[in-house]
Amino acid sequence: MTSTTPPSGLLQALIHPRSIALYGASDDVSKMGGRPVQFLQRSGFAGKIYPINPKRSEVQGLPAWPSLDRLPEVPDHVYVLTPTETVEAAVRECVALGVPVVTILASGFAETGPEGLAREQALLALCQGSRTRLLGPSSLGVVNPRTGLVLTANAAFAEQDIPPGKVFVASHSGSMIGALVSRGKARGVGFAGLVSVGSEVDLNVGEICSATLDDPGIEGYLLFLESMRHGPELQAFARAAHRAGKPVLVYKLGRSAAAAEMAATHTGAIAGEDDVADAFFADMGMARLGVLEALLEAFPLARRIALDSAPRRVGVVTTTGGGAAMAVDQLGIRGVEVQAPSAQTLQRLADAGLPCSPGRVLDLTLAGTKYDIMKGALDILLTAPEFDLVLAVVGSSARFQPELAVKPILECAGHAKPLAAMLVPDAPQALASLTAAGVPCFRTPEACADAIAAVFKRRQPGPPALCQGGNFAGAKALSEAQAYGVLSQLGVPHAPFELRRLDAPVDNTAAPGFGFPVVAKVCSAEISHKTEVGGVLLNIGDAQALDAAVGTLRANLQARAPQAACDEVLIQPMTRGLGEVLVGYRIDPEAGPIVMLATGGIWAEIAKDRSIRMAPVSVEVAREMVSEVNALKPLTGLRGKPRGDLDALAQAVSALSQLALRPDLRVHEAEVNPLLVMPQGQGVAAVDALVFQA
Amino acid sequence: MTSTTPPSGLLQALIHPRSIALYGASDDVSKMGGRPVQFLQRSGFAGKIYPINPKRSEVQGLPAWPSLDRLPEVPDHVYVLTPTETVEAAVRECVALGVPVVTILASGFAETGPEGLAREQALLALCQGSRTRLLGPSSLGVVNPRTGLVLTANAAFAEQDIPPGKVFVASHSGSMIGALVSRGKARGVGFAGLVSVGSEVDLNVGEICSATLDDPGIEGYLLFLESMRHGPELQAFARAAHRAGKPVLVYKLGRSAAAAEMAATHTGAIAGEDDVADAFFADMGMARLGVLEALLEAFPLARRIALDSAPRRVGVVTTTGGGAAMAVDQLGIRGVEVQAPSAQTLQRLADAGLPCSPGRVLDLTLAGTKYDIMKGALDILLTAPEFDLVLAVVGSSARFQPELAVKPILECAGHAKPLAAMLVPDAPQALASLTAAGVPCFRTPEACADAIAAVFKRRQPGPPALCQGGNFAGAKALSEAQAYGVLSQLGVPHAPFELRRLDAPVDNTAAPGFGFPVVAKVCSAEISHKTEVGGVLLNIGDAQALDAAVGTLRANLQARAPQAACDEVLIQPMTRGLGEVLVGYRIDPEAGPIVMLATGGIWAEIAKDRSIRMAPVSVEVAREMVSEVNALKPLTGLRGKPRGDLDALAQAVSALSQLALRPDLRVHEAEVNPLLVMPQGQGVAAVDALVFQA
Repeated sequence: MTSTTPPSGLLQALIHPRSIALYGASDDVSKMGGRPVQFLQRSGFAGKIYPINPKRSEVQGLPAWPSLDRLPEVPDHVYVLTPTETVEAAVRECVALGVPVVTILASGFAETGPEGLAREQALLALCQGSRTRLLGPSSLGVVNPRTGLVLTANAAFAEQDIPPGKVFVASHSGSMIGALVSRGKARGVGFAGLVSVGSEVDLNVGEICSATLDDPGIEGYLLFLESMRHGPELQAFARAAHRAGKPVLVYKLGRSAAAAEMAATHTGAIAGEDDVADAFFADMGMARLGVLEALLEAFPLARRIALDSAPRRVGVVTTTGGGAAMAVDQLGIRGVEVQAPSAQTLQRLADAGLPCSPGRVLDLTLAGTKYDIMKGALDILLTAPEFDLVLAVVGSSARFQPELAVKPILECAGHAKPLAAMLVPDAPQALASLTAAGVPCFRTPEACADAIAAVFKRRQPGPPALCQGGNFAGAKALSEAQAYGVLSQLGVPHAPFELRRLDAPVDNTAAPGFGFPVVAKVCSAEISHKTEVGGVLLNIGDAQALDAAVGTLRANLQARAPQAACDEVLIQPMTRGLGEVLVGYRIDPEAGPIVMLATGGIWAEIAKDRSIRMAPVSVEVAREMVSEVNALKPLTGLRGKPRGDLDALAQAVSALSQLALRPDLRVHEAEVNPLLVMPQGQGVAAVDALVFQA
Repeated sequence: MTSTTPPSGLLQALIHPRSIALYGASDDVSKMGGRPVQFLQRSGFAGKIYPINPKRSEVQGLPAWPSLDRLPEVPDHVYVLTPTETVEAAVRECVALGVPVVTILASGFAETGPEGLAREQALLALCQGSRTRLLGPSSLGVVNPRTGLVLTANAAFAEQDIPPGKVFVASHSGSMIGALVSRGKARGVGFAGLVSVGSEVDLNVGEICSATLDDPGIEGYLLFLESMRHGPELQAFARAAHRAGKPVLVYKLGRSAAAAEMAATHTGAIAGEDDVADAFFADMGMARLGVLEALLEAFPLARRIALDSAPRRVGVVTTTGGGAAMAVDQLGIRGVEVQAPSAQTLQRLADAGLPCSPGRVLDLTLAGTKYDIMKGALDILLTAPEFDLVLAVVGSSARFQPELAVKPILECAGHAKPLAAMLVPDAPQALASLTAAGVPCFRTPEACADAIAAVFKRRQPGPPALCQGGNFAGAKALSEAQAYGVLSQLGVPHAPFELRRLDAPVDNTAAPGFGFPVVAKVCSAEISHKTEVGGVLLNIGDAQALDAAVGTLRANLQARAPQAACDEVLIQPMTRGLGEVLVGYRIDPEAGPIVMLATGGIWAEIAKDRSIRMAPVSVEVAREMVSEVNALKPLTGLRGKPRGDLDALAQAVSALSQLALRPDLRVHEAEVNPLLVMPQGQGVAAVDALVFQA
């Protein structure tokens, strides 16, 4: 990036500024330009506040300054509140003075067209090589409830007594930072800071969060994203946060096609595929949440659950069967299985005189809603080896009699094994006391299950890929034969092949080494979709037929792709597998290198039956991917069907993914389609492949 | 059923009793048996309260009575609070006196084993032919907040000031009625009554709700179900509620396999397939909700949206792009598409000087958060023909400045076109005022989308099936040839066939009328799974091969199914379709007759790619079913693939479903598998079928 401000300076200027100038501050508190002065004064911000307004001597009781260069000091942070066309001049002044952070409220830049884009580029040019970093444009500002920094034009911050907390929020949506504060307050949850990042022309989400990692008051992160943007910086942040032991929660819009399209129109960003984002978040150790309220509730759980690959078995204890069933149901929908207590655990419960009826959930029943019973049950479940997390679902008593079933949960909060709670009635006080004690606790079964599933789905970030981003504008397709060459270097098996000249009759004495029948395909870097030009002929039974086939291919090419340079015909034995899959690799512009395993054929697009990971992946991870593709289930030996060689498939997926560690191969995208899965012990074989090389 | 109490009497005794006896009432308010007296007195119940307790002269300040027969009147309702083993004696007394409704708190009946089952049967025998109806056992009681009837042992009803409302709740879970009251209260929502139905030994959910349909204070229903039980009564109620214009909302556990299994262990009920329940609810016009909070929020919407087959197009207007995108995303996940304003509507907005940027959502932006702008936009959207529902998503202003964007929503509440609202910040006062005005309004994007999708999914109940329940214990399979006979009567096409004797050589002069190649299959009512006994031989090319094939079938049968009576071989031409499907019909024990269309083959079970409706269905509805099965998409002519005859498929599905109107055929279950779908214009053909007849 362009700036020379060190991260620690950025952290200070961004969320711990000692002095703030409000460029274009208004005396009228009902105007957006009047709000920051009002909010900062009301919240007791201890630093200097300099309203800049050449038309007034005073703004909301503070002395007004005619311009930035007349201030007694260079402020740490300038918030530019003036209209779009005046922003450039303001930023110019800031750069001249060396202001570390300038936040811009106005919109009307690149998202509006060529004129706006020029305005944006002018801003960036100003900052180039300077110590000034920009936040926005379209930023509703920065809030740090720990210090009373309410530097925002968002009307929601008329809110008094904004509670501080431990989680730092970075949001693409400026209005959501207000909604999170009000919803958090109602739920007894505060934040360590909130930034409306706007259109991320300079500072982006990843950089902003990275700059705050050294703030000891920040123990976790919550990102509200409209789309995947600035992936590399996001990745760098996620890896650093993981190293620092600070969990990252993410809510990203665009799970449905309609919302993805909205994000694209709204921000001008290209909406990537949502399951690529899913894979990116999980592989970077971030918990992607899908239920709004879980954003407020998931952090205490995320910090208690390690990212290692341990089994994730949930035990449930309850005073209300119906309430617990709601949680179990929501967990089940999200693929989290609730584990029944073992026979040994039931015996321990029985020995202690506690309820011990067998079943998936330990139901203490209404009659068991007593301190001693809940405490006894928790003590046993939290030391039972079959659980990695215990969830206590508490019924009506949580509302008026927390001493019965909530108190024992509070007392067990410090146990080595994580304990979470869901309250079935409306019980705000019990929730508040659990929240204050750091116990992960949930108001609804949906948020509870969403948080648990998202936290469980996180994976330890693997070694970073060596191929990141880069310019692939000039990437070119290889011929099928060249593509097999790349696959061979990686160790991805392909069917044997021989090349013949397209323009000469086939030499009958040179029958293919693998015998007939064969398939014959035109082989050219300029023809990626061979079937569309009549470039594939199947089931060729002898040398004479092959001769004829080459003639047919030649004629087809002449008729349907006369410009394409093509000298060769590729001959392969006719092969069938038990199944066909697609294995793909590409460098996603945001997520970086990814590897995908999918059902082959038309079904792939209809069912979106695919598994994606950040590349490279180990064979072990590739095995997980194999288990995630539904269409491969018949190849596991289901109902006596023959087993496919799924080990060889996992090896091939892992091998292809190693492209991410081979910048020397300059491969931008590779697709093996189909890869035939042979019967167990007989491996896999690529029978077509498309590789793009820069 | 066994009782002679008329429905109006039941309604009164159940939720409008003039007098209540509490059998075994305790003076100790901390005991379950002490709670009802305390709650009834505290809530100001105006009827008579008779504690029955032979050991005391007074219970909680009320005179105690030694036994029921010493009371000055026969009470409308007796709540039996004593232990399991004393229940029978209590019920005996009630029956003798002719008490209309007896509610039983104790558990320990059929769910506990043979002894409990005997106890349960004794209770039913007592009531047989009497005017006494039972609620429970395991019932936590009945609450009617309109009259102060807090006849419950549920500790949650220590709650003061239980707000009345318009929706009546019937719940399998006793603790959930308390949770709904407390959550509803926090959300400004009350109920017209709540019943904990317990184990439904006598009165079940459908009967209870049916009995209350004439109560003018009840305008809608909310059912909390742990499993599908007593389907016929539920269906009768749903149809009656639909006729009465009272919407029914349902939350049913068991969407995940784990929860379905829990419900089964918990209640002894058999957990049916969840998608059968889905079809049942939708076809009976009930809205099945999946998000807990939507239970409190969906009713005002359900009463505004008609059940007819109109298109369901949602228009969204917002002051916060990020907030609206959350709602659009959640709607999209649930299959509800948000419709963009038409060019004409955008022009009307422009003419009125209102924001009119194109896009899926009309984004007024923060700058447009003004009364005039929101009011103007709503007036135009609510008269735009492209929307069937308008959703206003309001940002931060909803919290402290409802006069800006919430007030116009309140003013448009009476518009002919339904208008709903979702509030992005925590804004309890705005929610309360919208709720009080009857405007459907939502606190979270998940509940908002869940309610809209569930309400849209309801279908007008069709004519009732003539085949309901019945005893199919003696149902027997037909042979394939007999099954084709049934299909022919219904108009479901099958491939031509001929029968030959299994025990005689084939007469070479009698080559099949349809020519070779053929398939030969053993044909017997006693062999349902022909391939498992080597009873199917494919691709038989001539008469000699057919002769040999019959010999092979004979030998296979002798070796692998020697006891099965089988005289015939069924011969069919070898036929292939563009696709294969499974069409099934069965009388589900709870839902009644259903028809199913599914992907054929192993994929069906892996992907659960199927569409289910209550039978019978029209060809039009069958077409909808065809469009719901993913695996049929390639047959719609996708990417230039040949089209299948999906019209003929819809006709066949509808034809098979007519079994529901043919009690004369006595068919309990029929499965056409596979039904071949031929190219467009060439129809469909069953090439195997299994029919069970009583």
